[in-house]
Amino acid sequence: MRIECIAIGTELLTTRRLDTNSVWLGERLAALGLGFHRKTAVGDSREDLAALFREAMGRSDIILTTGGLGPTFDDFTKELFAELLGADLVEDARSRADMLDFYAARNRTPPQVNFKQALIPVGAEPLRNLVGTAPGVWWQDPPGHPGVRIVMMPGVPREMKRMWEEHVEPRLAVLAGEAVHTLRMVVAGVPESNLDERTRAVREQHGHLDWTILASLTQVELLARGSDPADLVAARAAFEPVLGPDLVSVGDSNLEDAVLAELQTRGQTLAVAESMTGGLLASRLTAIPGASCAFLGGATVYTLAAKVALLGLDPAWLQEVGTVSEACASGLAEAARQRLGATWGVGICGNAGPGAEGEAPVGAVFIAIAGPAGTTLKAHRLAGDRAEIQLRTTALALDLLRRAIVHPAPSR
Amino acid sequence: MRIECIAIGTELLTTRRLDTNSVWLGERLAALGLGFHRKTAVGDSREDLAALFREAMGRSDIILTTGGLGPTFDDFTKELFAELLGADLVEDARSRADMLDFYAARNRTPPQVNFKQALIPVGAEPLRNLVGTAPGVWWQDPPGHPGVRIVMMPGVPREMKRMWEEHVEPRLAVLAGEAVHTLRMVVAGVPESNLDERTRAVREQHGHLDWTILASLTQVELLARGSDPADLVAARAAFEPVLGPDLVSVGDSNLEDAVLAELQTRGQTLAVAESMTGGLLASRLTAIPGASCAFLGGATVYTLAAKVALLGLDPAWLQEVGTVSEACASGLAEAARQRLGATWGVGICGNAGPGAEGEAPVGAVFIAIAGPAGTTLKAHRLAGDRAEIQLRTTALALDLLRRAIVHPAPSR
Repeated sequence: MRIECIAIGTELLTTRRLDTNSVWLGERLAALGLGFHRKTAVGDSREDLAALFREAMGRSDIILTTGGLGPTFDDFTKELFAELLGADLVEDARSRADMLDFYAARNRTPPQVNFKQALIPVGAEPLRNLVGTAPGVWWQDPPGHPGVRIVMMPGVPREMKRMWEEHVEPRLAVLAGEAVHTLRMVVAGVPESNLDERTRAVREQHGHLDWTILASLTQVELLARGSDPADLVAARAAFEPVLGPDLVSVGDSNLEDAVLAELQTRGQTLAVAESMTGGLLASRLTAIPGASCAFLGGATVYTLAAKVALLGLDPAWLQEVGTVSEACASGLAEAARQRLGATWGVGICGNAGPGAEGEAPVGAVFIAIAGPAGTTLKAHRLAGDRAEIQLRTTALALDLLRRAIVHPAPSR
Repeated sequence: MRIECIAIGTELLTTRRLDTNSVWLGERLAALGLGFHRKTAVGDSREDLAALFREAMGRSDIILTTGGLGPTFDDFTKELFAELLGADLVEDARSRADMLDFYAARNRTPPQVNFKQALIPVGAEPLRNLVGTAPGVWWQDPPGHPGVRIVMMPGVPREMKRMWEEHVEPRLAVLAGEAVHTLRMVVAGVPESNLDERTRAVREQHGHLDWTILASLTQVELLARGSDPADLVAARAAFEPVLGPDLVSVGDSNLEDAVLAELQTRGQTLAVAESMTGGLLASRLTAIPGASCAFLGGATVYTLAAKVALLGLDPAWLQEVGTVSEACASGLAEAARQRLGATWGVGICGNAGPGAEGEAPVGAVFIAIAGPAGTTLKAHRLAGDRAEIQLRTTALALDLLRRAIVHPAPSR
């Protein structure tokens, strides 16, 4: 089943607007064992859209569009599909009534231009929109294209999501029938090319699965897709010994979820003290619902004075060891752990750039993990711009912490 | 000149990965007065890519690709274009030397798989990559497609951006001829529709400029484009009185840059205490180089115990007023200000969801700004998912702080 997504709107091409709709749709499709083979963003140009709609009807079984259902002159998704397929548009009584209700609830009457939103191509089905004024369209087997389904949804994310959940996903779930199954393994602390070489033999042994390796600044993902769940179980069993302690998690979770889960199953807690990463590690953890089960809090100690005021470190000692040093990282980790009474404390200092900071070159990073059996330290020298250095540092800290939790060192 | 962008990588279709490269490229093109007519994201499937490359060579003058230049088996952008165009790949000596240097600087030797990255199609030109191992390709007038330019860049944003700036943009600027000038005004605390209505008359008076309004979760941008810089100066002068204190900045800077700049010009400092936003406000500020001039640090006090341990708040009092309350936000702001000896303290508490927290519904947010003239408070009730609520809250806090700095209330 080949599915493509078409995001319509000039703003998606020329500006800072990210097409987040298609990302969200991709995730929801993945949960059904489906996926896009292509995503396109295109402006409000009749000629471009007509060409794209024609191509899409020739190559895809399901075409999901977002946008172009609004009331203004530059909204014409429905009109254009109807024109290309030689179908008339007729007013749908319920869509008109929904729109009148929508405005009445806000003590307004619809502007005249809005009534075109209640028009639906003959042969297609309207999809109700109770949080906005533009109904969607489900068009199955449109003229000349048996087997094709065109699904038109609004571009406003809230309206699109609600329509998807209520009307589109249930229908696609039925179609998905025999689903594609996915095995997702998250690995940290290993470069992509190393992982590629290390896993080649095992991937070849499981060559009937579709393999992908995805590297980001924070982790590497190994993805396998296949139609028989037993193949994925076998692949997982073959990979686990190859990946060993570098395997962070299997399934949906990422490095930060895995760390929180490891803490939670052990009834352990975490506190952080961040200098160079300035709150990014804390914010990655608190982005996860329920983080407070294990994450107690942290100090963003961007200045020497803050290290003293929030964590009680000795200013003379800090000046002696330097605020970008192994000793400082250990001091931060131990103070965070002690102040908040946590099982684990993470301390981070370094220089994210762009300029050198005293003696510390750009990219110098020190990470310390203070735990029940003492303090572990790692020094790194990272390349990249400020944002990349900060983000990679949080990933290195999470991975170091994960290894300390899962494979605790003998006490000393 | 029709330009299209093709982002290559299965991760762009199925996961949480946003294609930010094409957004960045769209902005850079706009600065040259150019724009995409289409953007496509497509997986690492040979068949899909081959079809798309063929279509693109038939309809576009310039094809920008990102991704698929890496060393692994699922990277084959160059190979596929070469195959479709009937060109051989040959090793480029300088690209090979650059790669060896890149690894040598890191005390490593390249894995064998990496050497394929130095292969370039005959007739095309390599684009140097000094921050990664994959050179890009500039292919002008490829066989059978006179007038077409294929530009292949790496998918890693840092490598792509550097290559664009050094090698691609200068060539496209020559093609673009006359430059377009842009006026960018950032506004906060005002919904997009309000801004649309409020500025309509002025925009119409300056109707020879191209106007766009862009709303994100954190700010609204007003963009004007025109060929004569004097027109933009006049438009700016006309807008300033209309926008008044809602105008955050003019030019490249965003809300957080503007806040840091306002603090710095006054020699003032800032400390934050974040409960619900869990470090996100601190991390948005410390993402900016030189933030430490004004930002001292903060406490991520995700639990009651952390509010006590890091900020010295009274646990009995916290339990009495509740940790999602106006009083708690004020207490956080005042404690942060006092502990760190800052001019300003920001306190944030609330419930970002997904579940209700005690009596606090999802989206309940309290923000306090403690300053030299006392404490200002704002309560909000936000819609959206956890990430949206956290992000919008940091923007509301920054804007409230900005107004307090720029228009200080009479002391009380």
